[in-house]
Amino acid sequence: MTKLDIGIVGLSVMGRSLALNMADHGFKVGGYNRSAAVTQQVMRDHPHENLTPFYDLNRLTDALSRPRKVMLMIQAGKPVDAVIEQLVPLLEEGDMILDGGNSFFEDTRRRAALLAEKGIHYLGVGISGGEEGARFGPSIMPGGNAGAYESVRPILEAIAARAMDEPCCSYIGPDGAGHYVKMVHNGIEYADMQLIAESYLLLKYVGGFTNQDLAHIFKSWNDGELHSYLIGITAGIFREADDLADGELIDRIKDSAKQKGTGRWASIEALKQGVDISMITSACTARIMSNHLDEREKAWELIHSPAVSLSPDKEAFAAMVREALYTGKIIAYAQGFSLMQDASRLYGWNLDLGKIASIFRAGCIIQAVFLNDITHAFEAEPKPESLIFDRFFLSRINEHQDSLRQAVSTGVMNGLPIPALCNAVSYLDEFRAKAAGANLIQAQRDCFGAHTYERTDREGVFHHEWRWANDNQH
Amino acid sequence: MTKLDIGIVGLSVMGRSLALNMADHGFKVGGYNRSAAVTQQVMRDHPHENLTPFYDLNRLTDALSRPRKVMLMIQAGKPVDAVIEQLVPLLEEGDMILDGGNSFFEDTRRRAALLAEKGIHYLGVGISGGEEGARFGPSIMPGGNAGAYESVRPILEAIAARAMDEPCCSYIGPDGAGHYVKMVHNGIEYADMQLIAESYLLLKYVGGFTNQDLAHIFKSWNDGELHSYLIGITAGIFREADDLADGELIDRIKDSAKQKGTGRWASIEALKQGVDISMITSACTARIMSNHLDEREKAWELIHSPAVSLSPDKEAFAAMVREALYTGKIIAYAQGFSLMQDASRLYGWNLDLGKIASIFRAGCIIQAVFLNDITHAFEAEPKPESLIFDRFFLSRINEHQDSLRQAVSTGVMNGLPIPALCNAVSYLDEFRAKAAGANLIQAQRDCFGAHTYERTDREGVFHHEWRWANDNQH
Repeated sequence: MTKLDIGIVGLSVMGRSLALNMADHGFKVGGYNRSAAVTQQVMRDHPHENLTPFYDLNRLTDALSRPRKVMLMIQAGKPVDAVIEQLVPLLEEGDMILDGGNSFFEDTRRRAALLAEKGIHYLGVGISGGEEGARFGPSIMPGGNAGAYESVRPILEAIAARAMDEPCCSYIGPDGAGHYVKMVHNGIEYADMQLIAESYLLLKYVGGFTNQDLAHIFKSWNDGELHSYLIGITAGIFREADDLADGELIDRIKDSAKQKGTGRWASIEALKQGVDISMITSACTARIMSNHLDEREKAWELIHSPAVSLSPDKEAFAAMVREALYTGKIIAYAQGFSLMQDASRLYGWNLDLGKIASIFRAGCIIQAVFLNDITHAFEAEPKPESLIFDRFFLSRINEHQDSLRQAVSTGVMNGLPIPALCNAVSYLDEFRAKAAGANLIQAQRDCFGAHTYERTDREGVFHHEWRWANDNQH
Repeated sequence: MTKLDIGIVGLSVMGRSLALNMADHGFKVGGYNRSAAVTQQVMRDHPHENLTPFYDLNRLTDALSRPRKVMLMIQAGKPVDAVIEQLVPLLEEGDMILDGGNSFFEDTRRRAALLAEKGIHYLGVGISGGEEGARFGPSIMPGGNAGAYESVRPILEAIAARAMDEPCCSYIGPDGAGHYVKMVHNGIEYADMQLIAESYLLLKYVGGFTNQDLAHIFKSWNDGELHSYLIGITAGIFREADDLADGELIDRIKDSAKQKGTGRWASIEALKQGVDISMITSACTARIMSNHLDEREKAWELIHSPAVSLSPDKEAFAAMVREALYTGKIIAYAQGFSLMQDASRLYGWNLDLGKIASIFRAGCIIQAVFLNDITHAFEAEPKPESLIFDRFFLSRINEHQDSLRQAVSTGVMNGLPIPALCNAVSYLDEFRAKAAGANLIQAQRDCFGAHTYERTDREGVFHHEWRWANDNQH
């Protein structure tokens, strides 16, 4: 029997789709699932000449060509450690395990270090695109040993989505880099979706647009600089009729959003690193806040609502929201990329941010023309410290920032919850602050805790006896 | 020799001040510091009949009455574990170690569990008030074994600040509860300070007020519902002359704020717990953003500034800012207390939030009349799920929310960085959201990931085939 190119452990939706994608591209794939019934079901539903079922890990690893490549497509967390433990005795030096799940990057770092001691390579592979992506072309973010990656590269590049004829798969960096970038990708996705949701609220409640209007507006936006997967599906969503009642489905979907962990992980890492990704964080917490439906209803009754005033010029209003959304999007990506930039320094990953943007261009949820502009930005030398400093994005911000300010002001005066837009403008104004008020905070800190301060006019560290301030306490 | 009441390990500023405070109150205190020179210096500078120096931990523990009470006033982290290791062999069942530092509550939980196995009690004691507080009356938040607390209670209550004749010290809850509450206290302090800094920016740059005006304004605010330690010192700060140059000192303090870890810890815990404390988080990140002085200067040059328009009616403007600040403060405290409420459920601490507010009334940085109102709010039955639902605070929010909206709108239109105020209004509008836009997010999630959705008109979990949305992709 010919040796197999790769083994997939875990044949749920994502693992099965990825296995079939590889098989379609001519690779010989061995499939294994802890529960044999799942494997049997996959073989019944999706028979494929290049996909061979296994019911025993030992037999699977025996059937693989050297160096062996075993890809885990299982739930992140303890199950990954358990399967690694089972696999290690079956592998030998130079073999590799790929983790294609949404593992926490610190787990990946730990596992990579542990397996390196045994000469086994561990690749943490971020995969985005959902079932459809996994089956027909995801965006792939592989991290780990660069040499080991070379031997699996032909498979991953072949199954990845393609943008302008380039595979949306590129080596990210050592140990946890791939899973880290995937985590930030997901965080950006949260912010993107939240910005669209807030634009929807503005358009619906201040713009006075119907679902059909909204479908047209988003469709037209999708023809311009906002062209992206998320704007495209949003346009379609507003047209979708309800199967179970009159009208559009969007109006009967419960106003309460769920989430998995990755967006929150990104927010936590940002806090640990000391990087501000307020838009991503606010997108996560907005979903949390949306879940408190009973509290919201009670609060709606008890807290007075400001009088909502419909916009007099609908067309101008929609244009303003579009520019606000676009500017907010620039700032959200600037935040996400600054987090990766900082992590690259912190962990010594040497991330190529332009390349990373380029593999987001297709296959994944945040795919957008916009990412070409980000790639260009990071191809410049010297690289911008922030996307905001890129000449192109800077010009867009300068053209559109008034709309962002208008949108925030309008939302706030009308009582609409627009946390991502609020944090976009806050970030922009903190980023460009001539005065941040931090001098007062340092004065307070020196006054109550003798924490000292620096001065604008000379070097050194100073402490002041705050006579007036202390007087006010007595 | 009479046995001593308590031993203090660590005689830096906080430890020394606390030891002297105890000695003043008639307790016999043994003082020890790793470096003998520090101990000698303390005895030279602050001789006290009730304070006995020790140069050996063994002698110190020998001199203590049973059950022994040893209070650590040392740097949080590894030093605490190291000293515990040294102390354990010198203690016996029923003795207790108190940790008066800013330890991370999870460390305190771990240490309490570890020492409980040996029959030694571990009390994590949050202490706020800086040097002045430690010396003459801090706010004290003790957590740990309730029985053990009773034997040290007379000492801690005696040295604590007093508000309306009650000591600002009260048993918080088991294991890490005291340090957790201290962490949230610090987070609230960050938000309080950031709100004041943002009010300063509005008053200075849109109100056009001078430092002398600001001193008067804050002084007058301190006579009303905003009466608090922080507002009081702020009024004084604006009057303070520069020792080294003409004018007021505030104008020559570098506009870049430092921070220690606790505010960020609170933000991270909130994300883990799924609680929104956006104002505290934005206060932490505002300090981080303020540190990037070079970037800020560059961005200020490159990003156009909106035209700042001075307020025509200065008095009305200041009144508006005051109401915005007060409303923001209510929301910041609502966020902080909701985090404690959630932790109480999560860890089974049974926190008495009214009592906690009452011990913040004096001794600590956030001391304010305002905390009486919070105590009243949580004394109500049933307890409000959020401070915002308390009848008193609700009436203040309804009266003042327009000012908060105006202040945010004004700041944003004028390009001032006001992240805490922005997040205050965002939180309020998310909290009371009739529509949050989360239905669109769920539609997107179901469209790209088959994540399903719920409906408003019937029970169950649904998935839709998003024909239009998918059409837009092809």
